[in-house]
Amino acid sequence: MIIIGEKINGAIPSTAKAIAAKDAEFIKNLAKIQTEAGVDYIDVCASVDDDIELETMKWLIDLVQEVTDTPIAVDSPNVYTCIEAMKYCNKPGLFNSVSLEGDKVDAAFKVIADTKWECVALLNSDKGIPKTAKDRLDVFADLMAKVNEYGIDPSRMHIDPLVEMLCTSEDGIAMVVEVIKSIKEQYPTIHVTGAVSNISFNLPARKMVNMGFTVLAMNAGLDSAILDPTNGDLMGIIFATEALLGEDDYCMEYIGAYREGIFGQKK
Amino acid sequence: MIIIGEKINGAIPSTAKAIAAKDAEFIKNLAKIQTEAGVDYIDVCASVDDDIELETMKWLIDLVQEVTDTPIAVDSPNVYTCIEAMKYCNKPGLFNSVSLEGDKVDAAFKVIADTKWECVALLNSDKGIPKTAKDRLDVFADLMAKVNEYGIDPSRMHIDPLVEMLCTSEDGIAMVVEVIKSIKEQYPTIHVTGAVSNISFNLPARKMVNMGFTVLAMNAGLDSAILDPTNGDLMGIIFATEALLGEDDYCMEYIGAYREGIFGQKK
Repeated sequence: MIIIGEKINGAIPSTAKAIAAKDAEFIKNLAKIQTEAGVDYIDVCASVDDDIELETMKWLIDLVQEVTDTPIAVDSPNVYTCIEAMKYCNKPGLFNSVSLEGDKVDAAFKVIADTKWECVALLNSDKGIPKTAKDRLDVFADLMAKVNEYGIDPSRMHIDPLVEMLCTSEDGIAMVVEVIKSIKEQYPTIHVTGAVSNISFNLPARKMVNMGFTVLAMNAGLDSAILDPTNGDLMGIIFATEALLGEDDYCMEYIGAYREGIFGQKK
Repeated sequence: MIIIGEKINGAIPSTAKAIAAKDAEFIKNLAKIQTEAGVDYIDVCASVDDDIELETMKWLIDLVQEVTDTPIAVDSPNVYTCIEAMKYCNKPGLFNSVSLEGDKVDAAFKVIADTKWECVALLNSDKGIPKTAKDRLDVFADLMAKVNEYGIDPSRMHIDPLVEMLCTSEDGIAMVVEVIKSIKEQYPTIHVTGAVSNISFNLPARKMVNMGFTVLAMNAGLDSAILDPTNGDLMGIIFATEALLGEDDYCMEYIGAYREGIFGQKK
């Protein structure tokens, strides 16, 4: 499982406060604890006003790179902010994100095509978020046409099928499971990602729904996720699910992660 | 999900102590708390020496029936003990269990055929526990021949595919998932059950593996389980999984169970 640590995001109140106060130690600590939890990328999202977004991204990226070599996921709704932020990164990371809205894909793919950057792509377009599995897979087909046009290997793409709230659903996650399965069947080396906690908005005991969803989505093909890697229960169920799905012979990875304190009782 | 409460079992040290001390209040409390957690059956297993097994079963069953109307699962490795224990029950319950070992099936089915008792059947035979999915499904076919011979409706059967330890596995739960799916495809109204905590023997943070397994097994068709219904995390993930699998429109059951305190923070 590819883990994208979500904690350096101005949408999280404590992180927003640290950004506003220029609290460098707070940010560096977020980078450290996520690295210790074994993340593959550290997401950096400023969530501040447009006029200071880029300088804030630079400040955050510099702080992260002071304390860790873990690659960075540059994260902004503005694809041009991501393109500029890439330049501050010491090594290739994750471009988060593109979609078929406007010129996002062309602007981003032109820049990352001949690099080792990976890229998150959301399955929405100028028409919004498609309602049916077929419509979402049509958007995916259009997206992959662009991926091929720019010569990007599918293994560098992380497709986010866009998980919606369970509480307004009549048929659970059947649609998103169908989308995930179809994507992985068409492109076995592609990654499928998602913000797993979106599923539980407006429900009590959200952790239960997040954990159940993670297991079912991994079973369908999800192999990348943006989440809080210091959440031991979520990390534990991810390692357990990999073992249950036959991707961890004799549970060696599971037992190793437990011994490192990534989940279970803290030592 | 059909929940069989496992707490009145002499194999659990605290329950064994209460049985030895004839602590009626302890047993009655186990019946009460499991009823409050919404179980469908209360399992009663003495786990004592043969010469006192039946009298102990009677004592336990009488105590349970003093405090609740929840049906009882009579549980013994000795099919004749179960047959005798049935007579102490005020209403039809669950016969736990038969298998194709010796004359177990014939002895039990003769007694329950024309009743409303349901029955747990394990997929082992005189040859032991089959190693492959095909061999297990062959045992299942032999079992169903007996079920049909005695005119028992498949909906009264709870098939236990026999979950083994994950920690000695190279390919996770693929085999058991295949067995569960095939059973449900062949007999859509049959129940598939299991002791979900068996999966995590010898692993740390067993809860993670038990939860992950429960989700994946439910996805394959498990719709009955023997477990500790006072384990809020396990109950929570079961309700969450039903909603995720589209069996709980708008999460009404999930939210209701949360409000009743079956999972989440205790009120």
